[in-house]
Amino acid sequence: MTSKNENLAAVLFKANDLRVVNKPMPPPTRDDDVLLRMGRVGICGTDLSYLSKGKMGTEPIVLGHEAAGTVLQCGANVKHLKPGDRVAVEPNLPCHRCEYCMTGRYNLCQLITKVFMSPDKGNLCHYYRHPAAFCHKLPENVSLEEGAFLEPLSCAVHAVRRAGVTLGVTLGTRLLICGAGPIGVLSMMVARSMGATRICITDLNKDRLSLAKQLGADSVIHVTPGRTEKDLAMEVREKLGGRQPNVTMDCSGAEASIRLAIEATESGGRVALVGLGPREVKVPLVDSAIREVDIFGVFCYANDFKDALELVASGRVNVKALITHRFPLVEANKAFETARSGAAMKVVIACD
Amino acid sequence: MTSKNENLAAVLFKANDLRVVNKPMPPPTRDDDVLLRMGRVGICGTDLSYLSKGKMGTEPIVLGHEAAGTVLQCGANVKHLKPGDRVAVEPNLPCHRCEYCMTGRYNLCQLITKVFMSPDKGNLCHYYRHPAAFCHKLPENVSLEEGAFLEPLSCAVHAVRRAGVTLGVTLGTRLLICGAGPIGVLSMMVARSMGATRICITDLNKDRLSLAKQLGADSVIHVTPGRTEKDLAMEVREKLGGRQPNVTMDCSGAEASIRLAIEATESGGRVALVGLGPREVKVPLVDSAIREVDIFGVFCYANDFKDALELVASGRVNVKALITHRFPLVEANKAFETARSGAAMKVVIACD
Amino acid sequence: MTSKNENLAAVLFKANDLRVVNKPMPPPTRDDDVLLRMGRVGICGTDLSYLSKGKMGTEPIVLGHEAAGTVLQCGANVKHLKPGDRVAVEPNLPCHRCEYCMTGRYNLCQLITKVFMSPDKGNLCHYYRHPAAFCHKLPENVSLEEGAFLEPLSCAVHAVRRAGVTLGVTLGTRLLICGAGPIGVLSMMVARSMGATRICITDLNKDRLSLAKQLGADSVIHVTPGRTEKDLAMEVREKLGGRQPNVTMDCSGAEASIRLAIEATESGGRVALVGLGPREVKVPLVDSAIREVDIFGVFCYANDFKDALELVASGRVNVKALITHRFPLVEANKAFETARSGAAMKVVIACD
Amino acid sequence: MTSKNENLAAVLFKANDLRVVNKPMPPPTRDDDVLLRMGRVGICGTDLSYLSKGKMGTEPIVLGHEAAGTVLQCGANVKHLKPGDRVAVEPNLPCHRCEYCMTGRYNLCQLITKVFMSPDKGNLCHYYRHPAAFCHKLPENVSLEEGAFLEPLSCAVHAVRRAGVTLGVTLGTRLLICGAGPIGVLSMMVARSMGATRICITDLNKDRLSLAKQLGADSVIHVTPGRTEKDLAMEVREKLGGRQPNVTMDCSGAEASIRLAIEATESGGRVALVGLGPREVKVPLVDSAIREVDIFGVFCYANDFKDALELVASGRVNVKALITHRFPLVEANKAFETARSGAAMKVVIACD
Repeated sequence: MTSKNENLAAVLFKANDLRVVNKPMPPPTRDDDVLLRMGRVGICGTDLSYLSKGKMGTEPIVLGHEAAGTVLQCGANVKHLKPGDRVAVEPNLPCHRCEYCMTGRYNLCQLITKVFMSPDKGNLCHYYRHPAAFCHKLPENVSLEEGAFLEPLSCAVHAVRRAGVTLGVTLGTRLLICGAGPIGVLSMMVARSMGATRICITDLNKDRLSLAKQLGADSVIHVTPGRTEKDLAMEVREKLGGRQPNVTMDCSGAEASIRLAIEATESGGRVALVGLGPREVKVPLVDSAIREVDIFGVFCYANDFKDALELVASGRVNVKALITHRFPLVEANKAFETARSGAAMKVVIACD
Repeated sequence: MTSKNENLAAVLFKANDLRVVNKPMPPPTRDDDVLLRMGRVGICGTDLSYLSKGKMGTEPIVLGHEAAGTVLQCGANVKHLKPGDRVAVEPNLPCHRCEYCMTGRYNLCQLITKVFMSPDKGNLCHYYRHPAAFCHKLPENVSLEEGAFLEPLSCAVHAVRRAGVTLGVTLGTRLLICGAGPIGVLSMMVARSMGATRICITDLNKDRLSLAKQLGADSVIHVTPGRTEKDLAMEVREKLGGRQPNVTMDCSGAEASIRLAIEATESGGRVALVGLGPREVKVPLVDSAIREVDIFGVFCYANDFKDALELVASGRVNVKALITHRFPLVEANKAFETARSGAAMKVVIACD
Repeated sequence: MTSKNENLAAVLFKANDLRVVNKPMPPPTRDDDVLLRMGRVGICGTDLSYLSKGKMGTEPIVLGHEAAGTVLQCGANVKHLKPGDRVAVEPNLPCHRCEYCMTGRYNLCQLITKVFMSPDKGNLCHYYRHPAAFCHKLPENVSLEEGAFLEPLSCAVHAVRRAGVTLGVTLGTRLLICGAGPIGVLSMMVARSMGATRICITDLNKDRLSLAKQLGADSVIHVTPGRTEKDLAMEVREKLGGRQPNVTMDCSGAEASIRLAIEATESGGRVALVGLGPREVKVPLVDSAIREVDIFGVFCYANDFKDALELVASGRVNVKALITHRFPLVEANKAFETARSGAAMKVVIACD
Repeated sequence: MTSKNENLAAVLFKANDLRVVNKPMPPPTRDDDVLLRMGRVGICGTDLSYLSKGKMGTEPIVLGHEAAGTVLQCGANVKHLKPGDRVAVEPNLPCHRCEYCMTGRYNLCQLITKVFMSPDKGNLCHYYRHPAAFCHKLPENVSLEEGAFLEPLSCAVHAVRRAGVTLGVTLGTRLLICGAGPIGVLSMMVARSMGATRICITDLNKDRLSLAKQLGADSVIHVTPGRTEKDLAMEVREKLGGRQPNVTMDCSGAEASIRLAIEATESGGRVALVGLGPREVKVPLVDSAIREVDIFGVFCYANDFKDALELVASGRVNVKALITHRFPLVEANKAFETARSGAAMKVVIACD
């Protein structure tokens, strides 16, 4: 139960020092903004990384950026929302005037890439102010919990789109996904809904592979320590009907996984780097170059939330199947411990 | 002077054993083929690599694949050529039936990529049989010597096109080219003719940079041993009017050069790998990934000869400026030594 | 029952004079060809047009080009097929050497566009010789009847791909299809399988709309005589969730339908012209121009059969639902009458 | 000579009633805006259309939107400009929040397309307030007169880019331009600078063709009354070296010209509709459809000013060659009469 001026929030004070404390209410709602009562917030690998390494700036920060909530107040210019509407939050705010923003790649805007973190940016709190244009209204059949998934699902949508710039991840795509974590499995479901012909997914963890299979992967490969790239690449080809993948998405970031991606992909195909691993990797770039296997980077999302929402609303992507644990905001530390343990697929925190 | 059944050829017997010997005349001209009297043939880095490492198959091979000659006989089905026509030879022959051929990427056809080398494939000889569809007729104002340049120029055209898949290497491109050898300089001229806004080119060799400047580079950077990637990247930005390149073509293949390419390129830009170096390289792929700097491979050419020819015929690309040495076929060994010494930009051999 | 040298065929002698007669056996199988025992053949609008207008050349022609059959003999070079294999026939044979073929758009090859019709090209017969590369092997779970659908389904795949050159007919596409005949309904199923977000389809015929709805259209619009373009465009917008379509496929060819397509489509969207109607139409091109609504042409298919086959084999597109009538070859006239009557969706003839 | 609170402006009161009157000074400069002292303004066909048809809203409007001027004051947030800087004005202001703006196609923003005209939008005046982000700083070697050309040149850049979405108007383009008015000739120069292989341009007016030839067209065609589409298409092919254009830009808008564009263009090519003519046209769309000749619309520009500026600054496009007449602001009526007479290529008005 929250009194009107209580704004509980999960605040990171320094590495491994996360506390649920009372914060001031957000400043008055501006003309283009809405005030939200936060509902559900998912925990992501980036949150865990902040928790482990400590805050990036000089002040304590609120964590959480996979969020949905309910509109309490609307600024004077807001037309597409009204109090009571439930919305998913698109967290990163671009400048709208730089070359990236003006050409539709606002995920690369310096404002986003440089100011990724500011004290009040996080969503693990009770009250939150945000530009209305970056709040996506949920239809009746989409819950707040599903709404909180639009952020990672938009990452997957963007990643799949980047992976398919030329060929398209669509009819005709034989897709290899390295890594069956949340982004890998969401990407698999997105690619499936776009018509990818066959999808094979790999992981070290057998439980994750079972879930991936159950959610629509055509085949899975269990990666075990001793196996070579060549050996794994042969199994990939076999699992994809005797032909190499023409698109590979690496959702792991590990050097071995990127090497497999290059080795396994058909000449003229494409590798998308979705997972983030060590800063430097040793890779056979000559092999990718002379076979015209192109390597695409992926960062966040741009114009992907609306389509992510349609996938959930139409039932084509079942995000709820990924939730393994739920906690109230006051148990934020327990939630983060669970997420950090590796036992969970997705942990969701209820702020309401 | 050549008697009718004398077919002198530069044949590689084993590593560093190149001899000019008499070969049998080619077999009778088939319906879709022409018989050529070879004219001029350029020496390329691949030829030098064969020379140093020895033949790739089990039989001696004829070297040379940058060639132009004159039609002596036409097969029954040949319509676009007649005896006396001068032509440039597109050397690699695809299968025309595989998925790569059927979708317009015939440079990736297995027939080309696997059978790159066969005993009678080389052009450093007097008589040579070739499919007419892969002989490109030279207009009057293009010499055999310029015709011999269509092969490397087509490599450059293909590379520039690959480098520009999305943004286009055209109006709005700030282009960095790493390496001012023949392919780097040809790529510079091709990109210039396609409207690239500003072009900066780097090399270790000052003479090559002078030539590049004279042939149209806006700025050049001399790479010297002690310099760091960051330092070089800063100079690149400065030389390109205070902005990073949005397209970089690495025409060197060296690890340091690929690293600079990734470091220097603007977020959302593109790096094309044109030069071939060591099989494995250590590179900061996370940096390219989160900035969506995409890495494109480049192999040979497909449908590029005709446009390369237009560039030469219209005077927009001056290939002759790259020729530093000329030799007759009988002095092939001297020609290869000169090319191998590094003192030459391009060595051309006269077979007529 | 067919004796070994009997080659029954449905031959068009002149307008409205179709006879089932005995033709000579095909000439001996060449190295790259196979001899087929024809199985099932669908009747298409083009066949009906030939029937009504008479043969296009000077000799009688065999009709039929939506076909599947069984391999009887293989030429010496054929590797991917063996006697007994069941295959779908890709009927149009390109030259493999012109610019269109070499760049992957072989549907525009002059050989296909000029020599569309030759005496022995048709498939409504018992024995038929064809290049093996244009025979697509059917897996066990795809019947000859389904195989005969690969030709019109490839038309739909190609049309949907053309319709989506930039935006993609994929996630995010609000698609309007004008005309619920076989190509319209097949295109709807293909677009659905590629992830189109919402699809609305129109027709004059209520039965066709019912079938379209049942096969996956989100909404249908019954076009009745008095209705204006504006009125219909308003209903389209409403049916697509309050937003205009960003892609429209006109599968009718009627002037009114093309006008509706332009009127209804969102600024920046795309109209694909799939149906063929009168040679000249009066259209508001200024409206499409200033709103950057692009108009794409569509002709046949290129590299689409394999993906069409995957759609059928994986159960994602149910082609059998379109078959309303079946006849044996000897009743070809009755089959064509039925197709011509307009009462049928798809008529299939059994040649075996 | 202008006193500080005198703001002379060319105001359209109703059809054919244009007067140079004194207007109030613009309101105080806002944080993101600059106040400009207008310099030079070109007259465009749209201005002439307003003059002939009368104002579009209910209040008198200031004409002129091809403009350059000098910065007098800068708002608090403006960083890239300072008083004294000379700038070209990008006149149309998008909303920055709709789907078109967010995806880089801000020329299609409803705010631009609906509110094309407002009382104080025009540039034919002494003082003018504008968002700094839409003021493009001119380097020293670009004059205000040249700066006033960036608007029509950006139209040409956008049109050429739209014309080349797939093939690219670049190396390999055989380009037909119908109409040698300002946009046709500017498009020709832009396409040339992007590497178009051969360019042919048509017009009814011989003087315009002479200028086009002199500014870089490879060939010109004089269109005279009696000539048929087929006849003209044959001459086009001949003038382009025996091959049809693969890209055609119609910069006329006339029905006959659009019909020629479709007839003349090679299968698989592209027609861009740049000129605006009658609302409805009768065209052979079946011919364009079955030959996959695509028809692209073009509206204004988006992200094109910077590249247009580079073309002028680098000397690649000579805009001054198009100026045939110059007038001071007080002679605005005479300037418009001259433009309307058809005798001028481009009329420029000096506001300073």
